This record gives sequence, structure tokens and C-alpha cells, in this order.
Amino acid sequence: HAAQPINVVCAAPYYSSYPTMTDYLKSGLYKWGGDAETYEKDGPYIELVTSPNNPDGHVRTSKVNRSEGLLIHDLAYYWPQYTPMTSPADNDLSLFTLSKITGHAGTRIGWALVKDKEVAKKMTKFIELNSIGVSKDSQLRAAKILSAVSDSCEQENSQEGDSFFKFSQKLMTNRWKQLREVVNRGELFSLPQFSPAFCNFFNQVLEPQPAFVWLKCEGNVEDCESFLREHKILTRSGRHFGVSPKYVRISMLDTDENFSHFIDRLSSI
Amino acid sequence: HAAQPINVVCAAPYYSSYPTMTDYLKSGLYKWGGDAETYEKDGPYIELVTSPNNPDGHVRTSKVNRSEGLLIHDLAYYWPQYTPMTSPADNDLSLFTLSKITGHAGTRIGWALVKDKEVAKKMTKFIELNSIGVSKDSQLRAAKILSAVSDSCEQENSQEGDSFFKFSQKLMTNRWKQLREVVNRGELFSLPQFSPAFCNFFNQVLEPQPAFVWLKCEGNVEDCESFLREHKILTRSGRHFGVSPKYVRISMLDTDENFSHFIDRLSSI
Repeated sequence: HAAQPINVVCAAPYYSSYPTMTDYLKSGLYKWGGDAETYEKDGPYIELVTSPNNPDGHVRTSKVNRSEGLLIHDLAYYWPQYTPMTSPADNDLSLFTLSKITGHAGTRIGWALVKDKEVAKKMTKFIELNSIGVSKDSQLRAAKILSAVSDSCEQENSQEGDSFFKFSQKLMTNRWKQLREVVNRGELFSLPQFSPAFCNFFNQVLEPQPAFVWLKCEGNVEDCESFLREHKILTRSGRHFGVSPKYVRISMLDTDENFSHFIDRLSSI
Repeated sequence: HAAQPINVVCAAPYYSSYPTMTDYLKSGLYKWGGDAETYEKDGPYIELVTSPNNPDGHVRTSKVNRSEGLLIHDLAYYWPQYTPMTSPADNDLSLFTLSKITGHAGTRIGWALVKDKEVAKKMTKFIELNSIGVSKDSQLRAAKILSAVSDSCEQENSQEGDSFFKFSQKLMTNRWKQLREVVNRGELFSLPQFSPAFCNFFNQVLEPQPAFVWLKCEGNVEDCESFLREHKILTRSGRHFGVSPKYVRISMLDTDENFSHFIDRLSSI
């Protein structure tokens, strides 16, 4: 009989598009297999390891950990402004995107580091069949942006000022400080706790400061998204990420003005 | 039991990527059903109607013509420099691309005119799941290019000179004239014959002058692609388009210099 589609799993809470992106074409090659924490089937599987994780910001390793697993590391958020660079990204297959390093999500540019040449060839063939190629306009823009980021790192400590990553890291530190102050003032909400680690990029011990807040409503509030909407704060419910609606995801990457409104509204609850 | 994937058919010769693009993910929603001319199954099907056709340049209508057919008109080449504009493109679903109107294939920008609002919504959802969105850089560039094309049409007959379409139409006329002269000089090759028709854009009777030549090797040559490769002319064999290797497809849209080499080499055979 025909080969069965391989199960694709990821530990909850997971990026809300993984299940639909996996299943929408009803492929005979792969299908969504659910939460990696409770996955117990035999045979080959694909595990998505998002590290730091979207939505909760935690550093992750694979959860299923059996011999026939193929790991795809989604390193969209593995950049020094968000998390300490603790080790080289020398996985079998790592995915990256311009979207989170600099915010240029509109280019739709990503890239992959792949150890197995045959797998890399199949990925290239996939792009050809999916869209013939990737926008040349976006590729040119992405190359220019990455050059500017790279130049800013080489010119660090000259009169040019902070590198792109140092600038962004300071900004994230400031925003997380404001957020923790507001949340810790009351008992309505809680935030994830992160362990500091040595960052090989900045050469110092630093605490993670993720691109998203994974906020939990403590006490009686069961639907955190609805509760916050009443206070004019738009969030994405934990439901979409395979967990309880007591959690919501909120972006930490909005404009200074919008971030300021968010902090004001949260502190007035 | 589960719904069967719908058959996707197209009359041969067809665009060589249709079969692989339809089948590469082994979707449970659709599968390649082969040549529309010989398709005889009952029930719903999707027919791709490419008009003018890639590779042979002929104007097409649907071939299967049964009640449960859904038609997708691929109008990539339905522009006045290639073919007379004989009727409005008021099909249920028409696809267009910047690739052939101006040659900006690298933007990967296309668009669709869709009558059924629910179908259009599903197509939008598909884009969201496939790539979250389309490159903003490409969208901006495409808007600029289409504005320039539109402006050139409005300024026609002013001192600005020919519109974009008139310029392109003259260029194609010149190239097809050169090609027909060379081919008609000998008996080795033959070209498709096209009927002139009234073009509502140029307000005159014009002959089609497609973006591709669909060249046939007459006489004993069975593999036209190999034969022409010996004479340093690179082509794409009819095999890829579901028909005999006596046919090859050759682009008419290369640079002036390359087109000139092509004509020189063809005339020296």
C-alpha cells in the first residue's frame, strides 16, 4: 500500500500557523501530529523545534527524542537582541527569517542552513515548484539590509555608535523593564521567568527578552484575550497555540508610541 | 469514505510545469488528470485553459466541456503585443502575471480576476497559508511598472512616442518576420499558422506573434532538441509539453543580441 504521511509535531505552546500550514493541502507526504510532549507513535516523524519559542520565548530542545525523528529547528528568534547566543546553530536543518532579525517581514525572505546536501536540493526544488523562485526585488533588498547590519557590527566602537544588535538589545531591555514593573505591581498577571546565560555575541551574561510577551491571567479570569480586549489591548489567545485561554501572546516589537499605549493601558487595569 | 482529489486537466501541448506543480505535494484535494483532449472521466474536474497557449501560441477554449467542469483561464500571454484582443477576459477565473506583460518575472507577481467571491476568499486564504503574504517590495515595484505602462497608453500620440504595447508589438512583428523568412527558406522546419483577427486594443486586424516559437522538425529528425543543440541553439523538447520530440519551444523574448544569434544559427543549418 501507499506510504503513510509522516507526522509533524511540536511541543505546545506552538506557533499557531504550524497545524494549518501542515494540513491545508491534505498532503500525502506529511500531516499534523499534534503536541510533541504527548506524541507516542512509532516510526519516523518530524519535530519542529522553535528556539527561542514563539509564543513563550523559552529556549528549546527536541521533546520526542526518538531514533527516527527528523528535527527542523526554527531559529526565527535566535538573534542577540532577543536571547543570549549560547551555542552555534549547527543543527541538521535550521530555518531563519529576515522578519525577526530586522523586522522586514514584508520581504518574505528566509533562509536555511542544511547539513544534508540531498535535503537541501529537495528544498530548492520545492521553491521552484511552489513559486518558480523568490522575488528578486526582495532578495536584493535583503542583501542590502543584511550588509547594513553586518557593517554596523564591524564599525562598533568607532564613532558610528552602537551596532544594530546593541541598539536593538538596549531597546528590548528597556521595554521588558517597563513591562515587568507594571506586571509585578499587581497580582492579576504573571510573566515567564528566564534564566540568564552567557552570550557569545555580547561577551556577557544576559537575560532573554523575547519578541513576544506570553502573559498569563492569574486568579479567576479564564479568557485573558477577552478580558484584555475590554481594556483596549489586542492580543492572541493561548487557544491558537494549543494551550489554555488563560494565556495570551502580545508583540513587544510595535512602535514606541503603541508600546507606550500598551504599558499605560496595562498599568491602569 | 474520504472525498477523492479532483482531476486537473489541460490539452496537450501544455505548460510543462502543470503536472509537477499539481502532483508534487500529493494533495488529497487535486491531482493531475492528463491531456484534456482524451479525458473521459465522470464527475467534477478542473480544466486549465491557457490562451494564448504556452508553448504553441494558439488561442484556446475549453476542450472537455462537460457540466461539472471548473475552468481556470491562464491569460499570462493575453496581451496585445502577442495576440489580438478579441474579447473581454470575463471568465469565471482568469490568471495574469507581470512576467509576460513586461518581462518582470523576477517580481513573482501575478493577479486573478474571480467572479465567485467565496472562491476569491479561498485563494486569498491560500496565499496566507502558503507564504503569509506576497513580497511588499515586489508589490510596490509592480504597481510602479503597471503605472508606467498605463501612462504610456494614455500619452500615446503625444510627443512621448509609442505606447509600451505599440513598441512591443512592433518589436514582435519584426522578430516573427525575420523568423518566418529563415524557416520558409528551407524545408527542415515548420511553424504554426495563425489566423489574423480584429484587435480591439489597436483597432485593426492583426496576426498573433507569440512569446514562444513552437518549431517542428520536418522529415527524418525525430529529436529536434538534440538536433538544434548540435547547432548551438538551446530549446525545450516537446516531450516536456506532453507531445512528440519532433517539436521544440524557443523563446522569442531574449535580448536583441541573442535573438540575432538565434536567427543567424538557424539560417546556417
